[in-house]
Amino acid sequence: MSEKVVHAIQDEYPDDFSWCYGCGRLNQDGHHFRTGWQGDQTVTEYTPRSEHTAIPGFVYGGLIASLIDCHGTGSAALGLHRKNGHEPGDHVEPPRFVTASLQVNFIKPTPHGIPLKAVGTIEEIHPKKWKVHTEVFAGDVCCAKGEVVAAVMPDTFMK
Amino acid sequence: MSEKVVHAIQDEYPDDFSWCYGCGRLNQDGHHFRTGWQGDQTVTEYTPRSEHTAIPGFVYGGLIASLIDCHGTGSAALGLHRKNGHEPGDHVEPPRFVTASLQVNFIKPTPHGIPLKAVGTIEEIHPKKWKVHTEVFAGDVCCAKGEVVAAVMPDTFMK
Repeated sequence: MSEKVVHAIQDEYPDDFSWCYGCGRLNQDGHHFRTGWQGDQTVTEYTPRSEHTAIPGFVYGGLIASLIDCHGTGSAALGLHRKNGHEPGDHVEPPRFVTASLQVNFIKPTPHGIPLKAVGTIEEIHPKKWKVHTEVFAGDVCCAKGEVVAAVMPDTFMK
Repeated sequence: MSEKVVHAIQDEYPDDFSWCYGCGRLNQDGHHFRTGWQGDQTVTEYTPRSEHTAIPGFVYGGLIASLIDCHGTGSAALGLHRKNGHEPGDHVEPPRFVTASLQVNFIKPTPHGIPLKAVGTIEEIHPKKWKVHTEVFAGDVCCAKGEVVAAVMPDTFMK
């Protein structure tokens, strides 16, 4: 079930948009989440750091929410990029999304010390809005489910 | 509008439950969120670190989700503790809650570099479940709204 993401959408973001604490490749202190295709689903893998605990032995829920959040915006970008005829790795600048809403159901305590895998199913709900349904697995066990509504970043965002 | 939390519920958690990356006082690398009463509402203040960016100038959404999450479990603990006749500062061990679900609506980009203040309204929905409605302010501007359903931590959680 574990497979490295070779071509991640975040590798293609322009430098100005690569400072996200969750998924920005230029943010030295961040998580460096990387999101890619696996067939028609999306995946992001991440192994929590030792300090990312809720109580000893279990992963901090805020980190799981962060993973679902960035996985959501990355998956939405993958979806619209593919719809536009592109794949990460072909070095065409992808669209960037922001999170409109985030919903997380914590199903089981998430064991610490093993890689987590977020698996997403994407759905276009509006030309500029995508919904991403995500399941977070620790090994074979689904520990959390989430839903992100992501919107194309407005041009005014950087101004 | 800015007022330090003097007596935080997290100050009263036993050591074994004080390792949360969000709100554990013993987690050296964590955020050290501290949640207290302000009348019949609850507050948590936090100034994001320089690396907690979404894009430069704006706060990372996963951090806002983390703040709402820990503010929610802390607020639920405050609520049940008060119902049981106790206040943080009287050194009675409070109940500990876990997050069942987390919902965040991102309303506006959250400016980076100023303190954030989460303000919560609590609601008992079951003897062991509380719902916490939270608004996150940057200065006077409400940038995000969230809802946490928090459940009393089962005795089996640590086993």
